[in-house]
Amino acid sequence: MFNSVHEECGVFGIFSNEISSVANSVYLALYALQHRGQESCGIAVNRDGVFSQYKGDGLVGEVFTKEKLSAMESGNMAVGHVRYSTTGGKNINNIQPLVIRHIKGNLALAHNGNLTNSAEIRKGFELAGGIFHGTSDTEAIAYSIVANRLKTESTLEAVEKTMSAIKGAYSCVLMTATKMIAFRDPNGFRPLCFGKTDDGSYCVASESCALDAVGAHFIRDVRPGEIVTFSEDGVDSVMTHFPGVGEGNICVFEYIYFARPDSVIDGVSVHSARIRAGEFLAKEHPVDADVVIGIPDSGIDAALGYSQASGIPYGIGFIKNKYIGRSFIQPQQLMRENAVKLKLNVIKDTVKGKRVIMIDDSIVRGTTSSRIVGLLRDAGATQVHVRVSSPAFKHPCYFGTDIDSSENLIACRYDTVEDIARVIGADSLGYLSVEATKKIAAEADVGFCTGCFTGEYPVEAPADTSKNKFDQCMGRF
Amino acid sequence: MFNSVHEECGVFGIFSNEISSVANSVYLALYALQHRGQESCGIAVNRDGVFSQYKGDGLVGEVFTKEKLSAMESGNMAVGHVRYSTTGGKNINNIQPLVIRHIKGNLALAHNGNLTNSAEIRKGFELAGGIFHGTSDTEAIAYSIVANRLKTESTLEAVEKTMSAIKGAYSCVLMTATKMIAFRDPNGFRPLCFGKTDDGSYCVASESCALDAVGAHFIRDVRPGEIVTFSEDGVDSVMTHFPGVGEGNICVFEYIYFARPDSVIDGVSVHSARIRAGEFLAKEHPVDADVVIGIPDSGIDAALGYSQASGIPYGIGFIKNKYIGRSFIQPQQLMRENAVKLKLNVIKDTVKGKRVIMIDDSIVRGTTSSRIVGLLRDAGATQVHVRVSSPAFKHPCYFGTDIDSSENLIACRYDTVEDIARVIGADSLGYLSVEATKKIAAEADVGFCTGCFTGEYPVEAPADTSKNKFDQCMGRF
Amino acid sequence: MFNSVHEECGVFGIFSNEISSVANSVYLALYALQHRGQESCGIAVNRDGVFSQYKGDGLVGEVFTKEKLSAMESGNMAVGHVRYSTTGGKNINNIQPLVIRHIKGNLALAHNGNLTNSAEIRKGFELAGGIFHGTSDTEAIAYSIVANRLKTESTLEAVEKTMSAIKGAYSCVLMTATKMIAFRDPNGFRPLCFGKTDDGSYCVASESCALDAVGAHFIRDVRPGEIVTFSEDGVDSVMTHFPGVGEGNICVFEYIYFARPDSVIDGVSVHSARIRAGEFLAKEHPVDADVVIGIPDSGIDAALGYSQASGIPYGIGFIKNKYIGRSFIQPQQLMRENAVKLKLNVIKDTVKGKRVIMIDDSIVRGTTSSRIVGLLRDAGATQVHVRVSSPAFKHPCYFGTDIDSSENLIACRYDTVEDIARVIGADSLGYLSVEATKKIAAEADVGFCTGCFTGEYPVEAPADTSKNKFDQCMGRF
Amino acid sequence: MFNSVHEECGVFGIFSNEISSVANSVYLALYALQHRGQESCGIAVNRDGVFSQYKGDGLVGEVFTKEKLSAMESGNMAVGHVRYSTTGGKNINNIQPLVIRHIKGNLALAHNGNLTNSAEIRKGFELAGGIFHGTSDTEAIAYSIVANRLKTESTLEAVEKTMSAIKGAYSCVLMTATKMIAFRDPNGFRPLCFGKTDDGSYCVASESCALDAVGAHFIRDVRPGEIVTFSEDGVDSVMTHFPGVGEGNICVFEYIYFARPDSVIDGVSVHSARIRAGEFLAKEHPVDADVVIGIPDSGIDAALGYSQASGIPYGIGFIKNKYIGRSFIQPQQLMRENAVKLKLNVIKDTVKGKRVIMIDDSIVRGTTSSRIVGLLRDAGATQVHVRVSSPAFKHPCYFGTDIDSSENLIACRYDTVEDIARVIGADSLGYLSVEATKKIAAEADVGFCTGCFTGEYPVEAPADTSKNKFDQCMGRF
Repeated sequence: MFNSVHEECGVFGIFSNEISSVANSVYLALYALQHRGQESCGIAVNRDGVFSQYKGDGLVGEVFTKEKLSAMESGNMAVGHVRYSTTGGKNINNIQPLVIRHIKGNLALAHNGNLTNSAEIRKGFELAGGIFHGTSDTEAIAYSIVANRLKTESTLEAVEKTMSAIKGAYSCVLMTATKMIAFRDPNGFRPLCFGKTDDGSYCVASESCALDAVGAHFIRDVRPGEIVTFSEDGVDSVMTHFPGVGEGNICVFEYIYFARPDSVIDGVSVHSARIRAGEFLAKEHPVDADVVIGIPDSGIDAALGYSQASGIPYGIGFIKNKYIGRSFIQPQQLMRENAVKLKLNVIKDTVKGKRVIMIDDSIVRGTTSSRIVGLLRDAGATQVHVRVSSPAFKHPCYFGTDIDSSENLIACRYDTVEDIARVIGADSLGYLSVEATKKIAAEADVGFCTGCFTGEYPVEAPADTSKNKFDQCMGRF
Repeated sequence: MFNSVHEECGVFGIFSNEISSVANSVYLALYALQHRGQESCGIAVNRDGVFSQYKGDGLVGEVFTKEKLSAMESGNMAVGHVRYSTTGGKNINNIQPLVIRHIKGNLALAHNGNLTNSAEIRKGFELAGGIFHGTSDTEAIAYSIVANRLKTESTLEAVEKTMSAIKGAYSCVLMTATKMIAFRDPNGFRPLCFGKTDDGSYCVASESCALDAVGAHFIRDVRPGEIVTFSEDGVDSVMTHFPGVGEGNICVFEYIYFARPDSVIDGVSVHSARIRAGEFLAKEHPVDADVVIGIPDSGIDAALGYSQASGIPYGIGFIKNKYIGRSFIQPQQLMRENAVKLKLNVIKDTVKGKRVIMIDDSIVRGTTSSRIVGLLRDAGATQVHVRVSSPAFKHPCYFGTDIDSSENLIACRYDTVEDIARVIGADSLGYLSVEATKKIAAEADVGFCTGCFTGEYPVEAPADTSKNKFDQCMGRF
Repeated sequence: MFNSVHEECGVFGIFSNEISSVANSVYLALYALQHRGQESCGIAVNRDGVFSQYKGDGLVGEVFTKEKLSAMESGNMAVGHVRYSTTGGKNINNIQPLVIRHIKGNLALAHNGNLTNSAEIRKGFELAGGIFHGTSDTEAIAYSIVANRLKTESTLEAVEKTMSAIKGAYSCVLMTATKMIAFRDPNGFRPLCFGKTDDGSYCVASESCALDAVGAHFIRDVRPGEIVTFSEDGVDSVMTHFPGVGEGNICVFEYIYFARPDSVIDGVSVHSARIRAGEFLAKEHPVDADVVIGIPDSGIDAALGYSQASGIPYGIGFIKNKYIGRSFIQPQQLMRENAVKLKLNVIKDTVKGKRVIMIDDSIVRGTTSSRIVGLLRDAGATQVHVRVSSPAFKHPCYFGTDIDSSENLIACRYDTVEDIARVIGADSLGYLSVEATKKIAAEADVGFCTGCFTGEYPVEAPADTSKNKFDQCMGRF
Repeated sequence: MFNSVHEECGVFGIFSNEISSVANSVYLALYALQHRGQESCGIAVNRDGVFSQYKGDGLVGEVFTKEKLSAMESGNMAVGHVRYSTTGGKNINNIQPLVIRHIKGNLALAHNGNLTNSAEIRKGFELAGGIFHGTSDTEAIAYSIVANRLKTESTLEAVEKTMSAIKGAYSCVLMTATKMIAFRDPNGFRPLCFGKTDDGSYCVASESCALDAVGAHFIRDVRPGEIVTFSEDGVDSVMTHFPGVGEGNICVFEYIYFARPDSVIDGVSVHSARIRAGEFLAKEHPVDADVVIGIPDSGIDAALGYSQASGIPYGIGFIKNKYIGRSFIQPQQLMRENAVKLKLNVIKDTVKGKRVIMIDDSIVRGTTSSRIVGLLRDAGATQVHVRVSSPAFKHPCYFGTDIDSSENLIACRYDTVEDIARVIGADSLGYLSVEATKKIAAEADVGFCTGCFTGEYPVEAPADTSKNKFDQCMGRF
């Protein structure tokens, strides 16, 4: 799958006991979280209550040039954010962290997720004269915290009250003059964890790979519904919104596609979850073949799992061109097909004269799958059996994943799996079952959300369905 | 005077009867207003109520690259802004136009000036749970308009009410879904005017030179306290805050330094005002000499006026290097003196063996003046008589001019004009009198503000003097 | 005149007694010479015989970013170059200084001018197996020097021999491992001078304004045909190609347009030469009027001269927008006319209701002149009398000035001055006479070239006239 | 191994039968060859004999922006080049393709490799008055071709004669007005192959992956010593320098490290060669362990081979951060260790509590290996056995590979393999034998060069050993 399903964000925060180059740590962490958002990024630094910030459109390495990074203030706290925005990033006010001034001081907020009652929350504040600079629901969260702060004794209480009002997905890092507060929605849709460096700084991150990047030791995940406060007094946890052990609904797609394989989320290694997905695929959709290959990057682990479970040798079938990035210029119409080949070339030796099982993490429109199957046949594969390490997308996501509209989703356009196999030119096709996705991380300490596969959501979908891109789904499988 | 006194902003708005490339017009106008602010700029476009925007740090030509400009939407209205920011432009939320969403829709605001009760206004909203993204007083104006809009029937009424609450300097262009509203504070500290293009579009601009740049014909200035609404119904004026004909207090420094000589402000040509300043200088501080020269750019006109009034020949004494811009790298300490020479070189033929009258628009710290006088002597001038086409800065400005702190101002550090002459190495020195500044535009239809020279302000200075950079002034002249 | 006649280059060299930041000095000097070429630039540094260089397309401030400039090596010598290239700068091998390796070591060459026998020279070397990286005649000069170096005892002798072979215009700075050699063609078409800094470094420059920029004191011009060597042994002059005092043919257009007014060339101040051109114009083409104005930048001085000679008051008629540069995006067709207004706006007060004499330095195609006359009439001028401070272009230049083809030159397309006046909409028109141009610098210690006005060249025109853009000239005046 | 051994270049050429967007094809091909050189790149286009070019420092995507690429001329031929330069790329004249003019017309040359008698060749031309713009040996090849062209009837003959004179490594694409000529040194040190697109264009490339990228079908390798001419008359081969079937000495390191695994070189798939290297390693250095992992990117294939041959399970041990590129800013000293972790993070699940075999393609200084072994232990590996899929570097390369100096090479600093194992903290260490490297591609149709491992070179090393960085080698294994 290429660039067709998008995560919304990655967050990071650091709380240090002394004034230091906290912006540099955030910079490293954002590099480690870059896969969660490539449209824009930002860092806000807190030096004894004085906030400064820099943000911009582009990758971390583009926004934070040597000049800009070295111009960042030292501080004792900092938060950072990488963002993927569906609307083209035209509104610079949506770039996070959101830094605001309110009656009690400064506040910076970095948010990963999507509220389902953002419109209502916004409307409430607008009716009271509130103004919004951006279109993100992050601003609605900030408004709520500020409003609740006026009615309570502490920011912590304000966050607690806010969590009673907002619905949907949110894994947030909040920075006040003196504290860093991490909080995660009671469903725990998006990951969030924290750790500690050798010199005693606490770090909060969307994924544990960012803790590794700054040399912090993983302590634990922020639990669904939990509020963790980092301050001079150490770490403090408030569990009033905690749904209970084993409860919660983390997005299955974090394991299948979004997260980095070296991250551990809610007790489960992403890499291992993918290996297991491959193993389940082998059981659910066995086929006689000569080699199992995966489509980089996220199909690789599942292919290894399929191979191990099936006994069919694992092979390296593709080379991904690592230089193709934002600056690559798509050549004119006639060269499109080559462009796929430029991005992903087949290693002929692996597939020539062989029956190939090709593992992909998902199929969205089917166009790319079709081309890749073609590449394999051109390279001499005698059979191509496609196995997908996730169930078919047939429903929208309201919790932070940007899925294509139903008219484009191949699983919504065809009745049967056989139809889809035919369309993409595969000899056979098999999707992972929803049941299997729930088992892939049996040892996980939370439950799962599989709404995009089943249409059953743990939280009520937004009332306003006028913008619902999912008109209907033809898929009967 | 080089880069030492700063204007805060320039604004522009266009109201067209049809969807067209309004962003292009704003682009041209901002080029014409670039002298009013070089730190950042932005354009917001309104296409039948849908707002889009682009802003960034840098000059118009840097922010609006070919790619960015051509990506701007077409629309029927647009506003633009160029900004000079004292705090380094680190906060991207301060870049204007400010575009916000509120309960009644979208709103874009471009503001030139400075409120004196911004802190109180902000505090009021913050106490009610309001949040501020930036540090500019523009956001306070926007909040006020939105709050008043909730209590009134129209944006026009909201603006009217807002003008009763906010104090200080503001020349604004406000864009709503269907209207463009220009309003200017009752003192009229900063200029604002409007015109019409041949194809019927109305334009509002800080200076008439921007109307010229887009091919609009000047209609008239927005009067102090006036609210002018541009809509499908044409142009409408509300004068409830108008202080009366001849009233108002436009900043004298607009004529002396900020504005472009080809602009006409409140009925007076800037070029002519400068010529007259030179004429008054000749009367107030005559001296026998061989040639009168001006320091580019704004000392040129006054030098011509001095020459005409005194009969002493006008000469071209300096060449300013037009390539020195933001990308010029200041060489190390030892080369500083040459850097002045690189920016401003003497034409030796003009001054060699002559008694020279050198006209500058102002003296701030005196360092540059001292170097320039030195350049003239090195070039062979036998005498150098400095004449300044404005009175001496001895007091802070609260209305949008960024003046250095008193400890740096040469007029605050020395008792007498003679002392200053000695410090800068001049044979004699003369400042324009405050009386003369009031006469330089006798035919102007408004009054003047000379607070930075006299300490007498038309509007109460802000209560919070903790940040007042003016500890004391030694100047007794 | 706007951007229609182009100089080819500016050169600079510095010879220091110690290892220092010579690249910084060249950087400053190139800023001062930027008006002589804006397409590309480069600096080559010599540190005890080891050469390093950096060059690129663009202005000095664009090519030499902070990072690039600070990465330049220290050295005891350096040469720099700014270039205007007619062919679009596509060939990076044409960017100067040209740095080459040959059997005797390294060599860097910066050249301003144009050879008339470049093709022959190149062909000779090519027949012997020589290869050329670029298309410039500079490479031919380098080849000649290297070839002659093999046959002689010193680089100086090689330069001397080379000067016997090459024809046309060349003002060069050559850097070898141990010496800096400045040489100028026997006609002295292009300027070249040298000076000394307080710390004993020698500098060679196209114009004296660059000496000022680095704090060097002007010593004297390099004479036509002279070779000046700077080495550990001091300064040495070889005059074997010197044509004699008062001989030589400096390009008149250096005084009229190319050079900066603060420069002194061959004993004559450029500013004074322009003043005198204005005075001659007043005598040759008197007219009754109310005000004399000049078109910035180079028409200003002549306007002042016209005013002084005629007694008609001098006025400031135009403001040039100093922010319009390479990044300015020309708006679409319909806005073209405004674009002229954006670049050059009329100060209405100066011309309204008046009979105006407008001085321009030259008229090329006439299109811009026509628009400017229109702007003046729109601003209320009752009469517009155009006076041009140079004769009419009617012939090509073979010595380094890029003149438009004859089919575009207005002076080649019409028979009489009256016709041209009619075309550009002027009430009257007068060109400076060729005789006057020869007198404008009567005290100059060299003669002049007026080939582009008269067709009479001091050096034979190139044999190959196939590329001659001058088919015919209709002008009979 | 991270960025410590460097290839010098990649070349590409296209010969089309019609004027088309050949530059676009080269652009795609250079993206596919980017791994062979990231310092600079360039494209030269030939349109019926008229040459144009663009080159610059940086990656293909940085140099060829949308604007620059679309400004490239259409043509019927084009050549391109990606370059890695050891001297920092300061000399823009070294950027290839080299485009020159000579007596017979234009010529563009792209070269991969390194001559051993470049100094002699250059000296010969310099003695005859030749000048060199760059420091590359490519210019020496161009000079030779031009000189020989004068003495022969065709460029083909000139190339043939040149090949008799130059020694060392060269895989070149030469473009004349009407022909494209590919030639490869008789040892065939560097790869070169050609293919044909569906529309009949011929393409020459350093690696077959670039043919895939432009949709060309692989035809065959250019043989060692072969000259292949592409012209209107089709493809023509001259074999006068061909050493014979099975002869030649391709660089082993092309298979081990430089080339892309999806390329096929001299009849052998790079991927398969690496698999076989892993298999040989398993036989030569067996060890009892739980998992085999490879260091990305080039250790992956060998790890798979080791696993297959040993029966020990293959695992994915590391994730490489794909966003770390040229713009990444190395943090200060204290953060260095984290920087390795940021670039390459361990998947803990794969190694925790396990005996790990870690396959790397080579060890240069040992510093990185030491850190990576540390990462594995930190992640819980109980044993770490390092296996290297190449022999130890103990000698310099004169044929285009940039190897560190002997004082830095770990294999030169220690006597035994055990010492090195201790230094990098491994439980055991095994290098691939030289014999095995010769067998890894037994079916290859050419021989190998293993000079950097054995010190025995197929071509005499350069006489000038003054710059020889290899003082001595301590390694006795």
